[in-house]
Amino acid sequence: MEFDKLVHQPTRLQVFAYLYRHGETGFSDLVDELELTEGNLASHLQRMEEAEAVAVHKEFVDRKPRTTYELTEEGRELFEDHIETLEALIGDLDG
Amino acid sequence: MEFDKLVHQPTRLQVFAYLYRHGETGFSDLVDELELTEGNLASHLQRMEEAEAVAVHKEFVDRKPRTTYELTEEGRELFEDHIETLEALIGDLDG
Repeated sequence: MEFDKLVHQPTRLQVFAYLYRHGETGFSDLVDELELTEGNLASHLQRMEEAEAVAVHKEFVDRKPRTTYELTEEGRELFEDHIETLEALIGDLDG
Repeated sequence: MEFDKLVHQPTRLQVFAYLYRHGETGFSDLVDELELTEGNLASHLQRMEEAEAVAVHKEFVDRKPRTTYELTEEGRELFEDHIETLEALIGDLDG
């Protein structure tokens, strides 16, 4: 059984799970929903971006910059693989 | 959602899961089953012992020292709480 450290880290696991469920999400919404500091969230998102698990979109809404994040196809697959590993671990407990 | 760092760390999560399923287990069996180095396993078991999640038993079998480990009641509860948190995260994915 192998855990992918990119996904397994507790804060990132929650970011992955949120983006997996909700799709493209703004930075400030992630801060609010996951109750993280901006600095903490930004560093985890950067790590995910470097691993090409997350795509970043920048746009202007009412002349204000808005940055959104969504999982890439690779990011979704990483997360799904990780969940399968966790499900296997949990399933084994009944065995 | 909160992850207990004692349990969440990938190697310890596997040690917790193994001891939860198999009960009292010898050190060398854990090394073999989890494919860990002795030093790595020993340091994680020590951390778990310090947190009172694991009880250590030492005995002599055929005049050879044998050390076994099992989860304490507290350790079992920590692990069960953690699994519930993971199940909630996984369950939310379908929602």
